[in-house]
Amino acid sequence: MAKAPVLTPQADDFPRWYQDILAKAELAENGPVRGTQVIRPYGYGLWERMVAEEDVRIKATGCENAYFPLFIPESYLTREAEHVEGFSPELAIVTIGGGKELDEPVVVRPTSETVIGEFMAKWVNSYRDLPLLLNQWANVVRWELRTRLFLRSSEFLWQEGHTAHASQDDARAYALGILHDVYRDFMVEVLAMPVLVGRKTKQERFPGAINTLTCEAMMRDGKALQMGTSHELGQNFAKAFDIVYQDEAGTQQHCWTTSWGTSTRMMGGLIMAHGDDAGLRVPPRLASIQVVVLAIRDEGGVVDEARRLHQALTDAGVRVRLDVRTDVSFGRRATEWELKGIPVRVEVGPRDLVNGEVTIVRRDTGDKQQCGTDAVDVRVVELLEDVQRSLLAEATEFRDRNTVEVATIDEASEAAQTGFARIPWATLGDEGEARLAQDGVTVRCLQRPDGSVPDAEDDPEVVAIVSRAY
Amino acid sequence: MAKAPVLTPQADDFPRWYQDILAKAELAENGPVRGTQVIRPYGYGLWERMVAEEDVRIKATGCENAYFPLFIPESYLTREAEHVEGFSPELAIVTIGGGKELDEPVVVRPTSETVIGEFMAKWVNSYRDLPLLLNQWANVVRWELRTRLFLRSSEFLWQEGHTAHASQDDARAYALGILHDVYRDFMVEVLAMPVLVGRKTKQERFPGAINTLTCEAMMRDGKALQMGTSHELGQNFAKAFDIVYQDEAGTQQHCWTTSWGTSTRMMGGLIMAHGDDAGLRVPPRLASIQVVVLAIRDEGGVVDEARRLHQALTDAGVRVRLDVRTDVSFGRRATEWELKGIPVRVEVGPRDLVNGEVTIVRRDTGDKQQCGTDAVDVRVVELLEDVQRSLLAEATEFRDRNTVEVATIDEASEAAQTGFARIPWATLGDEGEARLAQDGVTVRCLQRPDGSVPDAEDDPEVVAIVSRAY
Repeated sequence: MAKAPVLTPQADDFPRWYQDILAKAELAENGPVRGTQVIRPYGYGLWERMVAEEDVRIKATGCENAYFPLFIPESYLTREAEHVEGFSPELAIVTIGGGKELDEPVVVRPTSETVIGEFMAKWVNSYRDLPLLLNQWANVVRWELRTRLFLRSSEFLWQEGHTAHASQDDARAYALGILHDVYRDFMVEVLAMPVLVGRKTKQERFPGAINTLTCEAMMRDGKALQMGTSHELGQNFAKAFDIVYQDEAGTQQHCWTTSWGTSTRMMGGLIMAHGDDAGLRVPPRLASIQVVVLAIRDEGGVVDEARRLHQALTDAGVRVRLDVRTDVSFGRRATEWELKGIPVRVEVGPRDLVNGEVTIVRRDTGDKQQCGTDAVDVRVVELLEDVQRSLLAEATEFRDRNTVEVATIDEASEAAQTGFARIPWATLGDEGEARLAQDGVTVRCLQRPDGSVPDAEDDPEVVAIVSRAY
Repeated sequence: MAKAPVLTPQADDFPRWYQDILAKAELAENGPVRGTQVIRPYGYGLWERMVAEEDVRIKATGCENAYFPLFIPESYLTREAEHVEGFSPELAIVTIGGGKELDEPVVVRPTSETVIGEFMAKWVNSYRDLPLLLNQWANVVRWELRTRLFLRSSEFLWQEGHTAHASQDDARAYALGILHDVYRDFMVEVLAMPVLVGRKTKQERFPGAINTLTCEAMMRDGKALQMGTSHELGQNFAKAFDIVYQDEAGTQQHCWTTSWGTSTRMMGGLIMAHGDDAGLRVPPRLASIQVVVLAIRDEGGVVDEARRLHQALTDAGVRVRLDVRTDVSFGRRATEWELKGIPVRVEVGPRDLVNGEVTIVRRDTGDKQQCGTDAVDVRVVELLEDVQRSLLAEATEFRDRNTVEVATIDEASEAAQTGFARIPWATLGDEGEARLAQDGVTVRCLQRPDGSVPDAEDDPEVVAIVSRAY
């Protein structure tokens, strides 16, 4: 008799599989106020690792972290016309403070271009002050009608970078650097997600931007997830907030600004890019717990050996968890660690131990191998690298297998129901984009044929990647 | 002619000195909405180091980080009577979301006992689930009438720990462990602040707590600053939120909970405990920049040597900044790094370099020494430890010199105008506490004569530490 599946199988109902895994892997739950989320310790541990890995890459660009207020005067938002239009429908507004009606209501930040613009204007005087490179890790609020944990929530955690530059070229180069050297590098190397990079169409741009660059990933149901965006804001915010500098010749110039962000949405992407019917599969470089050492039964020195291996792996620099809860059945605990996607399990049982061996199981393939107890640390370290490579290769192969080249809008619409379609932008254009929208299909990004980011959308070689999306 | 002071001298006007240093060391500014704050990159870098050092100590207790929503239903707050009474006057309330009046207004969290209590109730079933140890790093909002950057702001950053235990003894032991092994250890060892630990009087307790433990520091104007508190909440929140577990005998029991927090207020404490008339003095273990290598002039290989020393110190594991802005006067740059309180400066000039030497300056005492270029890394590492010890010793000596033993309430009130007074609690009591309040003096904590935390306030040996406070 087959045992009942722990999760709804992906092939049966992908959205339900996603809800199941959030609950059973103890990742997140709905908060009491509509659309808010509680990130549970195991989920938050993964987010902490994302923060650490991204933060080091952000700082390597010369950017520094700072913190700006949660509350923004309503009037700030109205200074940039497209920006206010884009965010007004989603605002949460505080009207009462300290028991009194406020004279001017304050907005809970949906993003911080406006308030940071105000301070950039104070801090920038001369070309010597540029570039000004700021980032903050913060919560933001967008009052969403249809929410889904991690993917679209009323409150989410993110980093938002905001920079000011002396020229358009500098701003563009920096926005591209964030896209490639921070976001793509982190997503490919750490998350093992083979994201596409490209340029958004006018329709899909950030409100107030002159150009939006994006990283797009394919989920295991063939839909796209936008993993991060980097915007050239031109001089729009610099003009709205008076961010000016004196150039070397002594002339006042408006700055060119950028903004860029990634959020807890990446948690949803991670789950849906790598998860399978047994649970999450976490890439080892990200994993908050890379290895779990399980004592199968409290018998024949098993617990002592598990403790010894836990220490040996810790000493080898591995993030390792010890599970000696031998009063809980081994099967139940193995299922739990599978659900949580721990890359490698070291199972210590009395029978193997008689032969001086343990069983090592990799989560991605389920492959098991026997290993002498003295070789565990070396073998595990090799295996972690192997799992990291395999997950990236598997996701890349999946993406490529589910991407087709098409020549017509109808073909694009059909192909986009199950994966990505690539269609010449010259064939699609604004009108084709509007037609696809009726079928629930959007242009995820524009690329050059070699997968690089085009300088402009009117380049005749530009290809549009279209699909359904989260 | 003496040069004009960079900051208002502390002795002239301490509050103004504090405002000056916040601006000139580029630590923080007022935000546009009343009482909010902008933490600038240099200030935030110090906060990031506080977070890192505290976080590792919190995790060492077995506690895990999580994230709970910013928005709390108004009804949650009313479930614990003292709690709602304590926080109601300070609440910021969102009444509009997504363009519509909300059916139930939501509160921007002033603290998260209530919402976390709700989830603890879901997650705890059996004694096996206990203790449940949670912490979050988050922003909170308390609509304050009189605000001062870092010390009292409408929005601030903090960590708030929330734990549930099977017995009162367990809860008490954990709350004490946080006080001693996390807070005091961090404050003494990293911040070089010789905090007193003790128990709050009933009057000064957290709203909803049965016992509040505290760390209290003396500022250089003799006033006290509460640096962190750890609360035993008894079964108050467990009863309000139904946090129950089944014990080993199968009986339903209410949990015993704790909460504990430290905030960006510690930034204010750091500044006022160590700062002097030339600026901040940052203890090396905290410092985001421990050493700055300054090229005095671009002459005689100075810039190359500065770069080499920067690399050598980086390789020695020191957090070091290179300053080769030789187009800005050396004096101006030296003043800037003094203001920012960088513990050690390595000044590389053409004259010293001819003799193969550089000048090393320690910020705390201003002492200068010549050092051969090859010995800089070793000397600097020693010096950093020495500066750390000296700052703690100096603050301890200052605190002890400004603390007096008194026998009467009048004496206590007088002594508390310039420092701390120690008076037997049996002499003071609730009535004496009320009388001192009229003079703006509060009981900071109750201690046993040896400085340890008393189990109860009716212990006849208990001493009250009283002073003015921030």
